[in-house]
Amino acid sequence: MPLPTIEWEGDINGRIRLIDQTLLPTELKFVYCEDIKSIWHAIKTLMVRGAPAIGIAGAMGVVLGVKDIQAKDTDAFLKELKQVTTYLGASRPTAVNLFWGLDRMERIARENKDTSVPEIKEALLQEALRIQNEDKIICRQIGENGAGLIKDGSGVLTHCNAGGLATADYGTALAVLFKAKEQGKHIKVYADETRPLLQGARLTAWELVHAGIDITLICDNMAGHVMKLGRVQCVVVGADRIAANGDTANKIGTYSVSILAKEHKIPFYVAAPVSTFDLSITSGNEIPIEERSPEEITNGFGKRTAPEGVKVFNPAFDVTPASHIAAIITEKGVIHSPSRENIQRLLGTSMR
Amino acid sequence: MPLPTIEWEGDINGRIRLIDQTLLPTELKFVYCEDIKSIWHAIKTLMVRGAPAIGIAGAMGVVLGVKDIQAKDTDAFLKELKQVTTYLGASRPTAVNLFWGLDRMERIARENKDTSVPEIKEALLQEALRIQNEDKIICRQIGENGAGLIKDGSGVLTHCNAGGLATADYGTALAVLFKAKEQGKHIKVYADETRPLLQGARLTAWELVHAGIDITLICDNMAGHVMKLGRVQCVVVGADRIAANGDTANKIGTYSVSILAKEHKIPFYVAAPVSTFDLSITSGNEIPIEERSPEEITNGFGKRTAPEGVKVFNPAFDVTPASHIAAIITEKGVIHSPSRENIQRLLGTSMR
Repeated sequence: MPLPTIEWEGDINGRIRLIDQTLLPTELKFVYCEDIKSIWHAIKTLMVRGAPAIGIAGAMGVVLGVKDIQAKDTDAFLKELKQVTTYLGASRPTAVNLFWGLDRMERIARENKDTSVPEIKEALLQEALRIQNEDKIICRQIGENGAGLIKDGSGVLTHCNAGGLATADYGTALAVLFKAKEQGKHIKVYADETRPLLQGARLTAWELVHAGIDITLICDNMAGHVMKLGRVQCVVVGADRIAANGDTANKIGTYSVSILAKEHKIPFYVAAPVSTFDLSITSGNEIPIEERSPEEITNGFGKRTAPEGVKVFNPAFDVTPASHIAAIITEKGVIHSPSRENIQRLLGTSMR
Repeated sequence: MPLPTIEWEGDINGRIRLIDQTLLPTELKFVYCEDIKSIWHAIKTLMVRGAPAIGIAGAMGVVLGVKDIQAKDTDAFLKELKQVTTYLGASRPTAVNLFWGLDRMERIARENKDTSVPEIKEALLQEALRIQNEDKIICRQIGENGAGLIKDGSGVLTHCNAGGLATADYGTALAVLFKAKEQGKHIKVYADETRPLLQGARLTAWELVHAGIDITLICDNMAGHVMKLGRVQCVVVGADRIAANGDTANKIGTYSVSILAKEHKIPFYVAAPVSTFDLSITSGNEIPIEERSPEEITNGFGKRTAPEGVKVFNPAFDVTPASHIAAIITEKGVIHSPSRENIQRLLGTSMR
């Protein structure tokens, strides 16, 4: 059972408890945010990270922010609420989920504007808890749907961190493993360390050690050798964005793993909520790939490990073609051999 | 033109000049060894590393060691020489090339025992220079033979460090690139950083920057993506050991790169001296794979990057099957589509 990344403690006058992810994997420390400034700081400094977790942190941050609003009439309250959400939005202006969470909070306030200020505040707390709970249910359902694909006694390779730390609790790819363990299956997990930022070593390994799952850390370049040794029976990874045809953008290195899996005839699974599908994108070719700072590679560990003057290429993501993916595991069900048609069938929506 | 890793300066009373590789890539410092203790220390502390370079350092170390031998008759000299080689052998007792170099020095002394002590000393200096020169010729010839495979304007990916720092000057895989550049070809090299010890980032990138070759550093898990972008037209790597059928052991991650190259229909070349072939080994399955310390992965940069309690798998090498190798480039010529038969043909030797 993973530790809860972020929790609300108490009633409307309560506080947020979160795991300071910047101290992992060497230290597990809970941080308590009692006012809006402290949660702003926690989001800003990446104490809390991962798209769903940031959305929840923003929503709970709104509850902290309205505690002190003195307005007696609802119109004045809504004005002050807008200042709260604007302030929180500035903590991480590129995080789509943060704004999605803040928008939901504003909407629920407007929907309750004919009630009293205390009632609106209570509605906001309930909405924040609902956002958190919806994410929990999605994670659990992904785990439930995916666990059936994991055979007892099998080795599973994962890349990067699609775990509970990024979500309300269970994660996506890791939800499948947590659920398989709950079902009494014995699995051996191999985690790629995932350079340059080492999310596999720092976060995935930490979560799985904590959950009591048999976990072995390897460097990214060892995955092929481990597969050749027959130690891996399937691969499960998360996703950042999935195109209408099933092409999947995920952390850099995922594409290489998919090729290694194909070579060794090992099924490659993607686990992600249906919100990850971007049906406005026809194929992976249209997904832009963010390039990040060279220093992540040349000075990744507080120490220079490459010569001055060397050029660096540091793409943050790559795209795995749908043809390499045995199945996409969502909260609505499993899409085997993903294609435009069977993705459309599961999502129950027409393509734009 | 790479900088000489190790050089003898002066006559029989001269000294060794070497690059302190422990300070790379952030500092280029030459170390001068004027006595046997200082070269012993340099080998011990990995200031000089790489099989051929260690063999040369040991042989030159013998010349430093005999400077002070006062014996007037050759029998007494040979006895003291034995103490010199025993002492040097203790600097790195697992380095096969060190003992190979020391053996050659002892042999040349014995062969000259009917001359005078000064003449034996001079013969020892000449033998050390010969060992160095032979390695230079081998490297240059590998470069010459391989450069024809590199097309003008092409992108070349390499893994780990098979460069001049490990040899007398040109290296093996990098010799091919140095020679291609000498021939006026414009190439763009991608170097995998090569976790856990980062030989690609620290050494290959340094050598290529120094040689004025267009070099881009990537993390190991980016190789597939770079190939997909069409930026790589061939792969060139070194080898630690090649079986009679062409299966090749090299730094961990080489096998994965060979699969990525195959997927993208990119030729994968191995560059190595014929001394790398171990014809007593039928296939790669018989090559033992050394496992190294977990700390190389969990504490690789002076900082813990993985949780306590995590298991680690840290194989130092992997084996690339001959079927993934387009050609093996040696000083005797290029073996296309390596197999038992055409390896035997080039080496001109019958299989044991």
